[in-house]
Order: sequence, then C-alpha cells, then structure tokens
Amino acid sequence: MSVLMHTLHVELGERSYPVYIGRQLLADPALYADCVGAQVVIVSNETVAPLYVDRVRAGLGERQLVTEVVLPDGEQYKTLDTLATVFDRVLAERHNRGTTFVAVGGGVVGDITGFAAACYQRGVDFVQVPTTLLAQVDSSVGGKTGVNHPLGKNMIGAFHQPRAVLIDIDTLQSLPRREFSAGMAEVVKYGLIADEPFYRWLQEHMPKLLAREEAALAEAIERSCATKAAVVAADEREGGLRAILNLGHTFGHAIETAQGYGQWLHGEAVATGMLLALQMSARRGNIDEREVQGLREMLRDMHLPTEAPESMSAEQFIDLMGRDKKVVDGRLRLVLLRGMGDAVVVDDVTEKELAALL
Amino acid sequence: MSVLMHTLHVELGERSYPVYIGRQLLADPALYADCVGAQVVIVSNETVAPLYVDRVRAGLGERQLVTEVVLPDGEQYKTLDTLATVFDRVLAERHNRGTTFVAVGGGVVGDITGFAAACYQRGVDFVQVPTTLLAQVDSSVGGKTGVNHPLGKNMIGAFHQPRAVLIDIDTLQSLPRREFSAGMAEVVKYGLIADEPFYRWLQEHMPKLLAREEAALAEAIERSCATKAAVVAADEREGGLRAILNLGHTFGHAIETAQGYGQWLHGEAVATGMLLALQMSARRGNIDEREVQGLREMLRDMHLPTEAPESMSAEQFIDLMGRDKKVVDGRLRLVLLRGMGDAVVVDDVTEKELAALL
Repeated sequence: MSVLMHTLHVELGERSYPVYIGRQLLADPALYADCVGAQVVIVSNETVAPLYVDRVRAGLGERQLVTEVVLPDGEQYKTLDTLATVFDRVLAERHNRGTTFVAVGGGVVGDITGFAAACYQRGVDFVQVPTTLLAQVDSSVGGKTGVNHPLGKNMIGAFHQPRAVLIDIDTLQSLPRREFSAGMAEVVKYGLIADEPFYRWLQEHMPKLLAREEAALAEAIERSCATKAAVVAADEREGGLRAILNLGHTFGHAIETAQGYGQWLHGEAVATGMLLALQMSARRGNIDEREVQGLREMLRDMHLPTEAPESMSAEQFIDLMGRDKKVVDGRLRLVLLRGMGDAVVVDDVTEKELAALL
Repeated sequence: MSVLMHTLHVELGERSYPVYIGRQLLADPALYADCVGAQVVIVSNETVAPLYVDRVRAGLGERQLVTEVVLPDGEQYKTLDTLATVFDRVLAERHNRGTTFVAVGGGVVGDITGFAAACYQRGVDFVQVPTTLLAQVDSSVGGKTGVNHPLGKNMIGAFHQPRAVLIDIDTLQSLPRREFSAGMAEVVKYGLIADEPFYRWLQEHMPKLLAREEAALAEAIERSCATKAAVVAADEREGGLRAILNLGHTFGHAIETAQGYGQWLHGEAVATGMLLALQMSARRGNIDEREVQGLREMLRDMHLPTEAPESMSAEQFIDLMGRDKKVVDGRLRLVLLRGMGDAVVVDDVTEKELAALL
C-alpha cells in the first residue's frame, strides 16, 4: 500500500506540476494516471534498474508501447554520446510525439532523460522518479536538464519542466552511504540559503537523518522541496533569485571539472564549495566564524569532504571558475551568505580575495 | 547603402521578433543593434562563409568576443556530431550566457545554429541571416530548430525563436539554380495552403522569379513570410494550424530518408510531395484534376522533380511515412487541400489509398 505523506505544487502557470512524497509510491497506478500516456520510455541505469524498474512497470500497467533504456551508471556518462544512444533506441522503437519519458534514478539519469525529452521531436512530456536523496531534493524539481562537456558541467541543456515528480523515500534505504551524505549536503544548503530554523533543526536531527529514520527524512525532503519549488516558481529560468540555489556550486563545479567528472560526487563537491562560500562570507564579516566551524563539524559528521583536493592550485581553481556559467560580462558571480538562512548573489569578489581564500 | 523594403513582425508575446527584408542588409549595423550583444558566435558553412561572413562582420563592428564557426556544407552534416563541434568551439572560447549566435547560411546552418543556441548553457539568443531562398521563406521564421537522425529528419531539436531575421535578397543572386528552385517550391506551397490569389500570381510571374527580378522576389518573399508569420503566431508549437505548413512534407521526408539526406534537396522532395498531396486531394474530389496538371507544369518549368525515385516501392514509402513525427496514436496525419489555397490536416487516409497513389 502506498502512503502519500506530502504533496507539493510547483507553480508555473500551464507548466505547473505536483511533487508527491511518500512510501511505496513507485508501483501506485493512481500517480501515473494523469502524467503518462499510451507510450512510455523508462530511462534508468544499470545500478537502479534491477532495484526499481519492475515497480515502476507495475505502476504503469499495460500500455501501447513501453521501452526500457538502461544507461551506464556514473556522472562520466552524462554526455551528448549517451544522449545519442537514448535517441537511437527511442527512434528504433518509433515512439511518437505523445510519448512520455520516465526517469528512474539519480540526478544523472534525470538530467539526461529530461534533456532527451526536451529535444525528442522538439519536446515531449517527462516524469521524474528520483531514487537518490540528491535528485529528490535538488535536480528532479525545477526543470533544469542537460549534459556535461569536457570544458564544463551542464553546459548543454534545456529548461524543460516535468509533468510530475514521484519521491518514494523507500528508495533511500538502499542508497550507499556516500551518496546519501552527498544528497544530504544539498538539504543542508536549503537551510543555509533560505531557512535558518530548518538549518538549526538539521544540526539537531542529523543523527536521525544519517540513521535514515523515515519521519525525519520525509520532513527534510518536504522542507527542501518546498524551498526549491518556491524559488523556481519565482524565477524559472534563473534570471535572478534562482541563482541562490547555487551556493557552493561555482567552487564545486571547479572541483568536479579538475578531478574529471565522476571522481567526486556532485554533493561532495558542493559540500566543500559551501564551506568555502561560508569562509568567504565570514571573511567579509557577514557571518560569525563559529558558523563556519559549525558547518565544518556537521559535514565531518556526515563524512563529507571539507577540503578541496590538494592537487588543485589556487590558479587552477580561479581559471575553472572563470568558465562557469555564472560569469556575466567577465564578472564572476558568487553566492554568499548575508547571514545564516539568507543568501545573496555578489559580483564584486576579486581574484585577490579568491586567491587568499584558496 | 542598405534598402529596407519590408518589415514584418512575428507576434509571439515576449518572444516577438522582426523580419527585415531588403537589399544590402548584411552589413547594416542598425539592424544588429537591438538583437546582438557583446559576444557573438557567427555560424556559417564553407560555401557561404567566404561570400557573406565579411559583410556580417562589418555590420557587427567591434565586439568583445567574436567567434566564427565554419561547418561543412550539406544536409548530411545536420547531425548531433556537427552540433558537438559547435559546442567545442564556443566553450573553448568561453562564450557566456549573454552571447548571441548568428546563423549565416541556408536551412541547415539555421537549424543547427538555432538548436545550438537553444541548448548552449540552456538557451542563449540567436539571429537568423538566411542566404538561401528556402531558408528565407521557410526555416528562418518560426523557431523550429534541430538536427537529423539516421532514422528520421528533424527528430532531435527545440522550439527556439530567433531575436530577429535578416533577409538580404542580394544573396539570392549567387544561389545555384537547383537550390533557388528548391526554395521556390516552398513559396508555391504558401499559395497552395493559404493564399490562392498569390498562387495565381506565382503562375503568372514564375518567369520573372526564375530570372531573379528583384521586385518580384521581394514580393514573393514578403507574401510567403507573412503567411508563415501568421500561422506561427496562431500556433507556435504545432498544436494544430501550423501543421498545414507541412503540405508535401510527409511524402517529402520519406523520399529524403530513403535516398539518404543530401541526395535530394529538401525543396525538391517537398515539390514532389506537394504534387502527391494534390493528386490525393484530386482523387478525393477536393480539387480539379487540372490543378494537379497545372502544378506539375509549373514544377517542370522550375526544373523540379515531379516523380518519386523509381527505386522506392510503395511499401517503403508507407513504412517511412509511418515513422514521421506527424503520426499520432498510430494514425498518419497528412496535409491535403480542401480547395486551392485552403489546406487541411486529415488523419483518415488509409494504407490502401496510399498504396493506390504510390
């Protein structure tokens, strides 16, 4: 029996959609009834598919045409080449414009699948079924899709909103500890950027969350998605406010690019990036140095990295950050904190300041 | 001195844009002032670039960053692989989100460039500078972008409207006769689907058009673009009316796919496809058989093919048409004429009818 614990709505006019949070949702036909048509392309990866695709198939029931595409697992496969293999399969099986792509997996599967749906026959529907904590609280909500390029992460993509997001917290029980912690880094981010009470709640409840207690998990996911949904509703295409969701990401992307995608998990790079952003915020006098230390301790409890790779020089860092999408007219835009739970985008950080920090 | 002969507007709310038609427009800085920022990526091909890119550069003047990407010439290069080479260059030169792609060339360049702009950093601005008649009256207006796949034409793409379209009819003087005629096939299409007086005008003025007399050309392009703009404004994403623009295209795409892209020109395949559509319309009693003969004669005068390739069997035709994007829930949708200048989409054409026709 499925247990629907929360339903959120991302409000985007005719592109609005529900986010369902609960237990045993994957096999619930009622949740697919409104968002999937006669033809379906299920996209997953070789790790997730054996665990969950049968449940999704059970939920979908009999359809005119169901195709299952299983991708290799890993951020290093989030490429145009992998995207091309999806199109090969879907075209070989003759899916039409009325088909719906269903992404079953983590952020990589969701991003590739969403971008494939954005481009297939110039755009078809898709549904997100995120099975990692990172994807549940971050990439599955908001419509950012895309693939990486050797010269930069997420450089090729589209804004394409899903028709629905199904978050089944049961999937978190099978998640490796490293991936779970990486996802929890993004949960911490929501507290830092927009919700200080939630951040304090996280400091208190982190042991329960790390023990994967269901009530705490559902609460953390619901509060994270609510903030994400509100920010996306206010700024769908990242004209302004949405940029605060990138706390730690400009530093983090530089780390991921330097190490080659797939070495550090995205959430691990973001964790270190958030700590750097808080250090910079403290240097500017916006927050107390104790908050930096508090975050460092929480990240350590979560087994997340708190230092950039030793092999990265400050020069390399600054060079890679200069290639980030957040560079506008030559000025690096960084998300810093004005205070705890209060993020702001600044464009006045100098290379000297960066060099001193790094 | 540039001579602006007509300005049309494609009305799409915040995505509205002007279509400029005239002579010596390419080098006119005034036309770029509103639609191009500090960074520019000029995309062209090896045939067109030596002829026109210098003029476009002159019109653009001094900019912070100008990158010229020259693609190989031909529909067979309208692929994901070619698209990837565009991203390689643009990322290597570090274009940011504020960059503008400028497509200088025919439909292939415009489609690839528009799709690259749709996907680069999840969407940047682009401007169409079509240098073939086909691109001027068809693909440059309306926001359809994309690339081909071995299993189907334009199967991967996006709706992404340009910021402006610059149609310089001087570029038509250098166009090879075969390409000119292929473009004129699409001009004839506008008469057939929506503007019988224009169709009669074309029957009368075809000798002047084939002699590339400027006044006649400007008139034909303006009337074609006006119909295209009106149809696109009414139905941006091909929910209904826009489908009438595909008269002859479902047959034509089957021919192009069977022959391998690049053997028949798109407009040549469409010409034969339109004739097949008119034959079907006459068989159904919608138009007089004389109109079929009239179109056949006009197409012959234009040196356009009026027969499908001998190597194609009816079975192959029907099979390839079944893969077309216009198939919805297993029903083939075809554009036929209810009368001259009056197109309609039907979904009740049987395989038997098709087999008899083909």
